[in-house]
Amino acid sequence: MGAMTGDLLLHNVRPRGGPPVDLLARDGRLAEIGPDLSPPAAIETVDGGGAIVIPGLVEAHTHLDKTLLGMGWYRNEVGPRLIDRIENERREKGRLGIDPARQSARMIVQASRMGTTHIRSHVDVDTEMGVRAIEGVMAARARMAALADVEIVAFPQSGLLIRPGTAALMEAALDLGAEVVGGLDPCAIDRDPKGHLDLIFGLAERYGRPVDIHLHEPGTMGAFSLELIVERTRALGMTGKVTISHAFCLGTPDAHEADRLIGLVADAGVHIATTAPASRPVPPVKKLRAAGVVVCGGSDGVRDTWGPYGNADMLERAMLIGLKNDLRRDDEVELALDICTRGGAEAMALDGYGLEVGCHADLVLLDAETVAEAVVARPTRRLVVKRGTVVAKNGHSLLEPAADH
Amino acid sequence: MGAMTGDLLLHNVRPRGGPPVDLLARDGRLAEIGPDLSPPAAIETVDGGGAIVIPGLVEAHTHLDKTLLGMGWYRNEVGPRLIDRIENERREKGRLGIDPARQSARMIVQASRMGTTHIRSHVDVDTEMGVRAIEGVMAARARMAALADVEIVAFPQSGLLIRPGTAALMEAALDLGAEVVGGLDPCAIDRDPKGHLDLIFGLAERYGRPVDIHLHEPGTMGAFSLELIVERTRALGMTGKVTISHAFCLGTPDAHEADRLIGLVADAGVHIATTAPASRPVPPVKKLRAAGVVVCGGSDGVRDTWGPYGNADMLERAMLIGLKNDLRRDDEVELALDICTRGGAEAMALDGYGLEVGCHADLVLLDAETVAEAVVARPTRRLVVKRGTVVAKNGHSLLEPAADH
Repeated sequence: MGAMTGDLLLHNVRPRGGPPVDLLARDGRLAEIGPDLSPPAAIETVDGGGAIVIPGLVEAHTHLDKTLLGMGWYRNEVGPRLIDRIENERREKGRLGIDPARQSARMIVQASRMGTTHIRSHVDVDTEMGVRAIEGVMAARARMAALADVEIVAFPQSGLLIRPGTAALMEAALDLGAEVVGGLDPCAIDRDPKGHLDLIFGLAERYGRPVDIHLHEPGTMGAFSLELIVERTRALGMTGKVTISHAFCLGTPDAHEADRLIGLVADAGVHIATTAPASRPVPPVKKLRAAGVVVCGGSDGVRDTWGPYGNADMLERAMLIGLKNDLRRDDEVELALDICTRGGAEAMALDGYGLEVGCHADLVLLDAETVAEAVVARPTRRLVVKRGTVVAKNGHSLLEPAADH
Repeated sequence: MGAMTGDLLLHNVRPRGGPPVDLLARDGRLAEIGPDLSPPAAIETVDGGGAIVIPGLVEAHTHLDKTLLGMGWYRNEVGPRLIDRIENERREKGRLGIDPARQSARMIVQASRMGTTHIRSHVDVDTEMGVRAIEGVMAARARMAALADVEIVAFPQSGLLIRPGTAALMEAALDLGAEVVGGLDPCAIDRDPKGHLDLIFGLAERYGRPVDIHLHEPGTMGAFSLELIVERTRALGMTGKVTISHAFCLGTPDAHEADRLIGLVADAGVHIATTAPASRPVPPVKKLRAAGVVVCGGSDGVRDTWGPYGNADMLERAMLIGLKNDLRRDDEVELALDICTRGGAEAMALDGYGLEVGCHADLVLLDAETVAEAVVARPTRRLVVKRGTVVAKNGHSLLEPAADH
């Protein structure tokens, strides 16, 4: 990577597809925006060639520690149930040598070259691995700090109350530096919704941290868990600090019930993270946004023992969100991208995110006529800028992937 | 494009991911397959570098005449109903100057560089355009014959009985050279299922042609139309000659009803074409295949007035079919690709399709470790071969797109 000065003049770029301007970054922040800026001497100038510029893509739900990127093909012969996949993964971690530090670094490089500048990663905490995955991802994010800001969710993937000792490990993870308290299917996996949620909200209160809970539970079971989450969010005054990931229960075909649940999360200020899996009922993003709910997007697992799909490309994720939600009009496709940029920034309460003067100069240049075209065509990223420094060009990271440490 | 001799030696390629061999094409057909073949003199040799080789991708459901590829971005502000999209398109065809010949040629080039060697295209026949779109696609396929074989379905997009005069135009289309009789939602659009189906099956019988009917109708209405199609397939002895495209009714959540309908199409030898839209219930491909039904895949419309998505990449379509059907195991992902290769060949009754000696040398080279990896990673196509001649390299067509005629 070149000199990391954080100073850069981007000439002839179109913010969100609008008229062309120049953007000047100083010390990693947007300092000036306007036509034909004259750069101070000694500032690198890059010709944007009329490309669209958007703020950095935000990966708001992934699992950096699980990916098999760069490890050779994993032949998937796993059983169909959620618990098959959880148990298979715990077994395979040791057998395959899925090193959380190495794998997280690889995925941060991959995400960065696709234009992602901010990542929220759930990271496994369990009684076999302890907090080693947390330590690994923390090491990777320190090494890759020039590429992306990474937030860590302590995630009890194998259950919390059903695996005694996990609660203490969750505390250890938060003590180490995980920023967010995670959770998982309080009914379907942990078999004790009150116990599970009291525990994680208790941690959140004690540590003063946000919550991001995986809720795959469908139908009325999921709706019940969602109600319990909303009750605790209200009781603890945690408006704006709780995210429900997946929330498949919001995809119920019962429109009246969907409206009721959307009303609950809107009133409580609970955010929704969606990966828009094609095979599942999913939260209806247009309805959620219309109700004022913050919706963010994520890749979920990328090429791991759970499944082979994924490339950490949040522009492609915007397309998949668009396809799943049948977003065809340009304004709808723009909404899909907004979920993968500003929505993520709001859910993660990022400071200084955007394309306004004063914001961090976290930028992606896209060769496309309109934002909607960029989403459907997913062009190779012309330029990715993190805090005013170019970190990827024409799809290639300027930081080599750290292959073996 | 280089000399179109149809003679080629492909060195070091792995058929469907198996052990490396050489493939020799003579006069457009596979003549020899084995390790370390010695080419006869004067035959071009290409080093496959250990790439996977698969037979050409088969695009079994698209609309060549509708695409806006190469025409500048179309801002979509269309209403949400099917009929809004049909009427908007009829209006926009003239306003935008969507020339079927030019646009079909562009999409054939695009599909070819993505590895497609066979295309079935539905082509609009209506009382405004008459058979001009049929003529246009016929002109395009003649010009682009070196890239792909194109089969044309005469398609009454705007309705058949509800638009008097269309039936005569369908006959004119078949007289001109359309190979397949199309149809569309006999209840929901044409409002006369018996009349519609008697008409198109009557044409099929009289002309001795296969049928491929769009059936978007959901639920019990769709199931009823499907029953009427099956009855006519049986009555006319058209086993293996009828395809139902979309068949959303097969995606019913009622497992008992789904099994009943799958039994009907399996017994009648009716094929199913799926585009696996993420936002709709879709035919369950694993169940269909297990019941012995031929399932093929398609892109449907590619960047047209109906919606902005699509790139005519049937490898990406295999991924989308995999995502929609939750195909995660390697054998399941391979099934998704099989649908987009052999399934299409079976549905279209292609002669000499495959990787055996004697088959047409229609081939795609993919840099990937396994077939499943190729589907999820969708690498740039290393080489595309049509009838023994290289037609695309590293993602670039060797035939220039015909931009303006």
